Formats: sequence, structure tokens, C-alpha cells
Amino acid sequence: MPQISKKGQQMPSSPIRKLVPYAEAAEKRGTTVYYLNIGQPDIKTPQVALDAVKVHSLETIAYTRSEGSEDYRKKIAGYYKKNQIDVTHSDIIVTTGGSEALMFAFGSVMDEGDEIIIPEPFYANYNGFSTASGVKVVPVISKIEDNFALPPIEVFEKLITPKTRAILICNPGNPTGYLYTKEEIMKLAAIVKQHDLFLIADEVYREFVYDDVKHFSVLQVPGLEEHAIVIDSVSKRYSMCGARIGYLVSKNKAFINTALKFAQARLSPPTLAQIASEAALDTPQQYFDEVKAEYKKRRDTLMRELEQIEGVKVAKPNGAFYCVVELPVKNADDFAQWLLEKFSFNNETLMVAPAAGFYSTPGVGLNQIRIAYVLLEQSLVKAVKILKEALKVYKD
Amino acid sequence: MPQISKKGQQMPSSPIRKLVPYAEAAEKRGTTVYYLNIGQPDIKTPQVALDAVKVHSLETIAYTRSEGSEDYRKKIAGYYKKNQIDVTHSDIIVTTGGSEALMFAFGSVMDEGDEIIIPEPFYANYNGFSTASGVKVVPVISKIEDNFALPPIEVFEKLITPKTRAILICNPGNPTGYLYTKEEIMKLAAIVKQHDLFLIADEVYREFVYDDVKHFSVLQVPGLEEHAIVIDSVSKRYSMCGARIGYLVSKNKAFINTALKFAQARLSPPTLAQIASEAALDTPQQYFDEVKAEYKKRRDTLMRELEQIEGVKVAKPNGAFYCVVELPVKNADDFAQWLLEKFSFNNETLMVAPAAGFYSTPGVGLNQIRIAYVLLEQSLVKAVKILKEALKVYKD
Repeated sequence: MPQISKKGQQMPSSPIRKLVPYAEAAEKRGTTVYYLNIGQPDIKTPQVALDAVKVHSLETIAYTRSEGSEDYRKKIAGYYKKNQIDVTHSDIIVTTGGSEALMFAFGSVMDEGDEIIIPEPFYANYNGFSTASGVKVVPVISKIEDNFALPPIEVFEKLITPKTRAILICNPGNPTGYLYTKEEIMKLAAIVKQHDLFLIADEVYREFVYDDVKHFSVLQVPGLEEHAIVIDSVSKRYSMCGARIGYLVSKNKAFINTALKFAQARLSPPTLAQIASEAALDTPQQYFDEVKAEYKKRRDTLMRELEQIEGVKVAKPNGAFYCVVELPVKNADDFAQWLLEKFSFNNETLMVAPAAGFYSTPGVGLNQIRIAYVLLEQSLVKAVKILKEALKVYKD
Repeated sequence: MPQISKKGQQMPSSPIRKLVPYAEAAEKRGTTVYYLNIGQPDIKTPQVALDAVKVHSLETIAYTRSEGSEDYRKKIAGYYKKNQIDVTHSDIIVTTGGSEALMFAFGSVMDEGDEIIIPEPFYANYNGFSTASGVKVVPVISKIEDNFALPPIEVFEKLITPKTRAILICNPGNPTGYLYTKEEIMKLAAIVKQHDLFLIADEVYREFVYDDVKHFSVLQVPGLEEHAIVIDSVSKRYSMCGARIGYLVSKNKAFINTALKFAQARLSPPTLAQIASEAALDTPQQYFDEVKAEYKKRRDTLMRELEQIEGVKVAKPNGAFYCVVELPVKNADDFAQWLLEKFSFNNETLMVAPAAGFYSTPGVGLNQIRIAYVLLEQSLVKAVKILKEALKVYKD
């Protein structure tokens, strides 16, 4: 038998995937499952994007330029300018989802054995991209007690070694929903400048910000041009996760030119999806207002209901559509499986994402879960009720 | 300034890219440019694929499963069965183009420093994927005099080291158009079994085979199940390069399970493109018959015209839509630039791909170019006439 690579053996599986057969079995038994685990919004894609594909006039679905068409990138630059971010089309590479933007960024700034510092809990696939790139994740634990705010900058300082190449943040955060303040971003900016590192900010949830706080991008920090790299995506913004269109944005020319070589090797981002995504930039403001109002309502409802369960701790999110919840259980992984395998209330149960998969430090976050509020308000209320009843009877 | 990675610095640029500004300048001067360099077919995408996207009924462009939907993979398995290749849907992962299939295959079977043996000249992006994966390409030179047939198997044998993990072939070949015989495939099969290596076959041009010879897939070799990996793609088969849909096919479960972890990290292949690609499987046979007849006609015309130029050597291709041509020049790179910058005949000129970019051994193939016969017959005739006139006046 020929050998599988070490890297391949180390690649993490999706932490949710092993729960899927239990959810399927529960549904087969006739039990309704509320899916609180998924990052696939239930919101509709803007009509303008759906329609653009329907009226396409292509005779051949041909490659586009590796970095995306100039027209599309000019429109994207216009979007950033409207958001007080001063970039031009030549600072942008269109990628196959935010995933590919991350892979290109990792490949362009890090070699095997290099280190990247990431506040945890973080988006589980950062582990996958790090393993695929042979890069070591150095986590900095942020705490549910602090709402997952930025840990003291001295903690980062201590972890910087000659192998450190970058700090990566997700802002607002998946899974935490935490929105970094301008002051926190400025602290990170100072430290990356001092140590000559890149600051990679995954800002795919930038539009999902509640409570009249404002998102502050790493691209808005004066003097950070050579250090700041933004990962962006149409997936959540326009509820078109399946399009697989993202962007890499940076004023650092050497970085963009390097990332472009990775882009050239894979030829082109998907053409049909670029048609939909370019049209999505014309989505009327009303769409976003409605979506944000809907998520805010869901979040408020979810917080209110969760706070009524004894022994449950929750960090209030300012952004994105996730929150991390601490449960009075020892092992949320076992609990999540038990919910699907053994429990039901009025013939209904839940699927949640155990939070351990969002940490790279072993043994941390074992009693936490991530809830995605991508269900209707009344379903969220029912789901929390089920959680409450489940916790009454669950034995570790 | 923060550092770019070594890997990023080493990533090759597209060999054609630096010619693009010269082609643009020529067009600005009013000179017609015949593009013989591109792998983007001028053939139309099957109507059934174009239409499927137009009538989509999606309300949300959502993720699909990371490995592609079960229905789609079952249909793909049906395609292979029709082609005497016995695989099921669970042996298939849908990828974002053949490019991603290659990246997943490289990541799953090789670690940094491992070696892959590839007959050259080969598809230039194999260099890019190898660099991105930290893998060393060990080339075996195949010769234009032999029509780029498989070099003696003893040459492979000598190059195998403890770090060798795989042999990679492109069949039929880009840029050579060479179709490996069953006997050649059997020799490769024997050597990979003997040394416990993977045999990765890029078969994206499998349908483009002329002269009543038959394509023989590595998946058709009895007993090679644990070693054979096929890279496939809809790009050329249905002239939909911009869809970005490919497949990874193998009966080796450990391999497929590992590749799936890479697939999960990037979430999903593009959804709209999967709709088009699934429909493309219903393309009537007549479409392929016409396309093949068209390419065969073009190839025959191209061969006939090229053979009339003194000092030009050409390997007759049995498959794909490329051929490698040896010119009576010292440096085809300079010649290609000169064609665009300095030469025109009746105010027309050519863009060709210098073949050096298809070799990884430095200094080899310097006097060769690749011609893609993706232009109409009459344009090919004109293009070869221009080449002939150019060679009369070109001075090295």
C-alpha cells in the first residue's frame, strides 16, 4: 500500500461531521432536529444576483483572469471606498471563496515550520489550512468571561519568536461573534509593525455588526499598508456560500504579486459565480437593513432565552451570527452526540457544534458549544427550550 | 517590511503572462494577433449546460457537500462506467477544477521534501503545485524525436529514491498531445506496484483522442486499485474552463478519505458550476462527434502546413489539442516576444507559448513552442504562413 502523507494524516476532520450520522438517524426515527450548528444562513440570496445568472449570455463558460476581471475588481474597490477603505482594483485578487484567500495568504507569507499567532477560539478551518501549509498555529486563549475580547497584548508579545510571520484575527469573530474595537486593532497594528509581521484579518462578517458599533478594518490603520491583509467573501454578506467567491485585499505589492502566482497556478476563479457576485454588489441597501434587523432580533431573543437557563454562561456577540455558550456539562462533544442519539423533547432535538474544534489548545473549551442563529426566531425559542430540558436530565 | 515566504518567491509565474503586454501593444498598433498559446477552447459549451443555469430555481446559493452532491457523483460514476471504468460515487470527490484535484492529490500523498517523477515536457502548472506543496519534481525527459512517447522504464527506475512518492503523467498530454499506449501504462503500473508508489494520471483530455486509437486509463489496470489516482475536469470536455469543476477519482479508500479532509477545509466546490456540470453529462453524443471531427481536421491541417516549413520539427499528436514544435531558433522565448513586438506579415502576427516553461530541467526545450489548435482551420493556415514568413527573417 503506498503511503498517505504525514500532513494528510494530520489534517483535522470537520468537528461537526461525525455528528451528521446521528442527526440523520434521529430524523429517520421521526425526530425533528433544530440545526444550530451550521454556518449556512437561511437568508435568501439577493434577487439581483440570482437573476444575473439566469440571463447570462455566455456561449462558452471561459476562464476569467486569474485575479478576476478588472471591471469586477473596480466595482469591489468601489464597495470598499463606500466603507471608508481606500483600495484600488490592483490591491484585490478575486479568489475561490474566503478559503482560497486564506490558503494564498498562508502560502505567500509562511513556509513550513513558520508560526502564526491566532486568538482562540477561532474558525476551525484555520487549523486545516495551517496543517495543509505545514504552518504551526500558536494560540492565545481569549475568555468567555471577557466576552472573548482581545487578550492583553503582552501575551502576544511573549509568544513572538523568530519563526512568527503573522497574527490572524477574525473580526467579527466566528465562533465568538466578538467585534474588535478600534483600540484593539491599533494595539495589534503596533505589535505587527514593531516585529515586522503581517496582520491578516478575516473580515467576512464585517457587515453583520449590531448595536450601532462600527466595524474598524485593519486596512483603515494609517501606516499599516505593508502589513495588513484582508480576507473577504461574498458567502455570508449576500447569503451565497455556494458561489465560492472571496477576495484577498492588501496594499502590499510584493504580497499581492506573490499571491497572484498562486492564483495563476489554479487558472481562474469560477466564472458563473463571478457573474452572480458582481451583480450582488448592486443589492439595494434595504436588503442589508432587513437582514441585519433579522439577525439582531434573533440574537436578542437567543440571549434572553439562554440567560434563563441555570448554569449556562454566554458571551454576548456584537457581530456575525454565532455565539459561544458554556454549558454545565463536562464534555460538550458527548453532550452533542447524546442530544441526537438519546434525547428528545416532544419528539424534537438539537444539533450543536462542540466548541473544542474551535480551539487548538487541547482540553480547552470542552464544556462550550457554538450556536449559529441562522434559524427563525420561533425556532430559536423552541431550540433553547429543548436545550434547557436536555440539561435537566443529562448526566455526564 | 514583513517577509514574503521562500515558497512564494519560488512560485513560477505563468510563462505566457509576460508576453501578454506585447500582444496588447500589437493589437493597439492595429496588428491582428493569432493566439496559438491558449488552452481555452473556442468551442461552445453544450447548450444543455448553459440552459441548466438559466432555469435554476435556487433561492439561496448554498454550499453543497464538500465532496459534491451524491446525485452528481452517481452520474459521474455512470459516465466512467460507460467508458469501461468501474468506479462508484464514493470513489469520487468533486473539486474546484482539475487544479484543486491536483493540489489535494499532492497534499494527500506527499510531504515537504518528497519527490514526484514526471515525464517532461509537462503542463507548466505542475511546477506551481509542486512549489506550493514543497515537493520536488524529478523530471524524465521525453523526446520530440520519439513523438514524446514514454521514456524507457529503466530511466524511471534509476530516479526512484526513498523520497519518491508518486509518478505523474498527463494522458493524453498537454503540451505534447501524446497518448500513452496500454503497454506504456502497464509498464508504469508495474513500477509503481513494485516500489509502492502512487500513479497519478491527469486524464482531462481523455475524450480528445483521434485516429481510432483508444484511451487506456490507469483505473483500468487490474490490481492497481490502491495506486491509481485520476485527475479529471469538465473544463475541456465540455468547453467550460471557467466552471472550475474537476474530479479526483481513486479506489484507494485511505487516499479518498484524506483528500476529503482537504475538501472539507475549503467547504464546497462551486454550486452554480455543479448545476451546469451535472447537466453537461447529458450532452448528446453528436456534440462530441462534431468537436472531435473539428479538432482532428484542425490537427491534420496544422501538421500538413507545419511540415512544409524547412527546419521545423513537429511531434504528431494523437490526442488533446496541442502540439510541440521545434523551431530553427536558439531561444523560442525571444522569438515569441519578437513576433509580437517587431514582426508582422500583412499586418498580422502570432502569439505562441515558449515550451521552456513546460520543462523543469533548465536549458531544455529552448527552441520549442507549444501550439494549441483552438482556432478555426483557415486561421491555423494563416497562422502557419505567418510563422513561415517570420522564420525567414528572424535572426537569433
